[in-house]
Amino acid sequence: MSKDVESSLSDIGPLAVICGGGNLPLAVADAAEKGGRGVVLFPIRGWADPIPAGYRQHWVSFGNFGSFCRVARAEGCRDVVFIGSLVRPGILQLRPDLKTLRLLPKIWRMFRGGDDHLLRGVASIFEEHGFRVVGAHEVAPEILMPEGPIGTLRPNSSQQADIEKGLALLDAISPFDVGQAAVVENGRVLAMEAAEGTDAMLRRIEQLRRNGHIERAAVRGVLVKAVKRTQNLRLDLPSIGPQTIEMVARARLGGIAATAGSAIIAQSERIGMAADREKLFVIGVRATSAQR
Amino acid sequence: MSKDVESSLSDIGPLAVICGGGNLPLAVADAAEKGGRGVVLFPIRGWADPIPAGYRQHWVSFGNFGSFCRVARAEGCRDVVFIGSLVRPGILQLRPDLKTLRLLPKIWRMFRGGDDHLLRGVASIFEEHGFRVVGAHEVAPEILMPEGPIGTLRPNSSQQADIEKGLALLDAISPFDVGQAAVVENGRVLAMEAAEGTDAMLRRIEQLRRNGHIERAAVRGVLVKAVKRTQNLRLDLPSIGPQTIEMVARARLGGIAATAGSAIIAQSERIGMAADREKLFVIGVRATSAQR
Repeated sequence: MSKDVESSLSDIGPLAVICGGGNLPLAVADAAEKGGRGVVLFPIRGWADPIPAGYRQHWVSFGNFGSFCRVARAEGCRDVVFIGSLVRPGILQLRPDLKTLRLLPKIWRMFRGGDDHLLRGVASIFEEHGFRVVGAHEVAPEILMPEGPIGTLRPNSSQQADIEKGLALLDAISPFDVGQAAVVENGRVLAMEAAEGTDAMLRRIEQLRRNGHIERAAVRGVLVKAVKRTQNLRLDLPSIGPQTIEMVARARLGGIAATAGSAIIAQSERIGMAADREKLFVIGVRATSAQR
Repeated sequence: MSKDVESSLSDIGPLAVICGGGNLPLAVADAAEKGGRGVVLFPIRGWADPIPAGYRQHWVSFGNFGSFCRVARAEGCRDVVFIGSLVRPGILQLRPDLKTLRLLPKIWRMFRGGDDHLLRGVASIFEEHGFRVVGAHEVAPEILMPEGPIGTLRPNSSQQADIEKGLALLDAISPFDVGQAAVVENGRVLAMEAAEGTDAMLRRIEQLRRNGHIERAAVRGVLVKAVKRTQNLRLDLPSIGPQTIEMVARARLGGIAATAGSAIIAQSERIGMAADREKLFVIGVRATSAQR
């Protein structure tokens, strides 16, 4: 990196990483630091996993927007990135501080609708308070799903057709701000993600197989993850982690397809090895034109 | 009923009612008999509920298509109606008799795809063997959902908006032959039905509320049931029974909307009373133009 870029990066101050659960937040922090950017982590109590002591960190609570603002400004942060799994909190879980309390009417309206609507509302509150909300893919482009297979396996033609069907289905429900994942097997849609999230959807498949409602198929099906068409702020990109591989294996599916350039894959090497071990494919695919 | 109609009805022989679970099969049988039609029930082992002794009945198994043909012909049945809940069987559960065995390559292809695809295949096999597959709504039009409220409550404007969103969503996924039900609350899609079926979807909502992933909403949401656009044979119409009311109440939703003239409601008086008791609305709504 040239001196010029480094000084321009220090000009804009460290990056505030607001951390949900899982190991994506650390992957983003590491990538941003490798790029010469200072990073301050703001793990969310009750959601974020423990953060190693080496990282500069300030734990925050939902609803303590006032204290976040004070600490982030004192740290010189202007850019903010949201990353990590975040089961949608209830508005009653907020326990708001004074600043948040003033924003409640606005927050109330944000909670009316899908996740993307809510996230856009959250982003607008941060922006109104002088922060700039950036996508994880902007500060850490290396975590974006590449096109083609991760690991050694590839989908066969039946699975390829299931992938196409899943992508078309997710594209069709995109305007409704529902979910970013579906399971398709032998041309049949087995599950569509909504409020329950991807993990619960995969556990459902496991359950339906166990009680015989879905039987072992001729060709094992596919988990398809695709970014929502409405996801223009890219605040909640569909992501694949090592535990996704485990759950897909337990659901006895054949593999995972995710939209290249928009889905997030942390630790792709580790995921490739896990996929090979479980005899699953993981592949980055072109989204339909609307998802691109 | 005039003598002419009665004799023409006896000419076409009794109606074969192939019974899945629940009390819809008896409602259809009763309605057909009230219309002067003879009825022979074929309850499916492992799926149908017990049938009172007063009904003419022959229990059948999945995969015993040959024995069904023999008995139905001996009874003089030409028209066949499929009715009742039927969790999709696995192809391995068939235990085929000789005739079914010969049809296996065709059946195998039928199992590749959604429920509607499978049902159309099943219907075509019956038709090729000289039976006429009729919709439950044709032999018992009184079980069709009427337009307007059942019981005394009506959706408020927020719930009306949720109903519209649910109908539009189900219309959008219709070409994918997925499910016929969704749950929408305060503009947010909480769940979409696929292989798990409506009951399991409602239990999921109950569960998500219990563990706090969905909190008590300002206005309680709506279960929306709409016939699939591809459902041209009307073999698996979305239906509402007394147990649907119970499950919707347990999921703490505000009511049920189903497409008038295409969804099925058995025992609507009993359902209206149950809905009033649980303070739920049940309403027949106009489908979007594509669903009509």
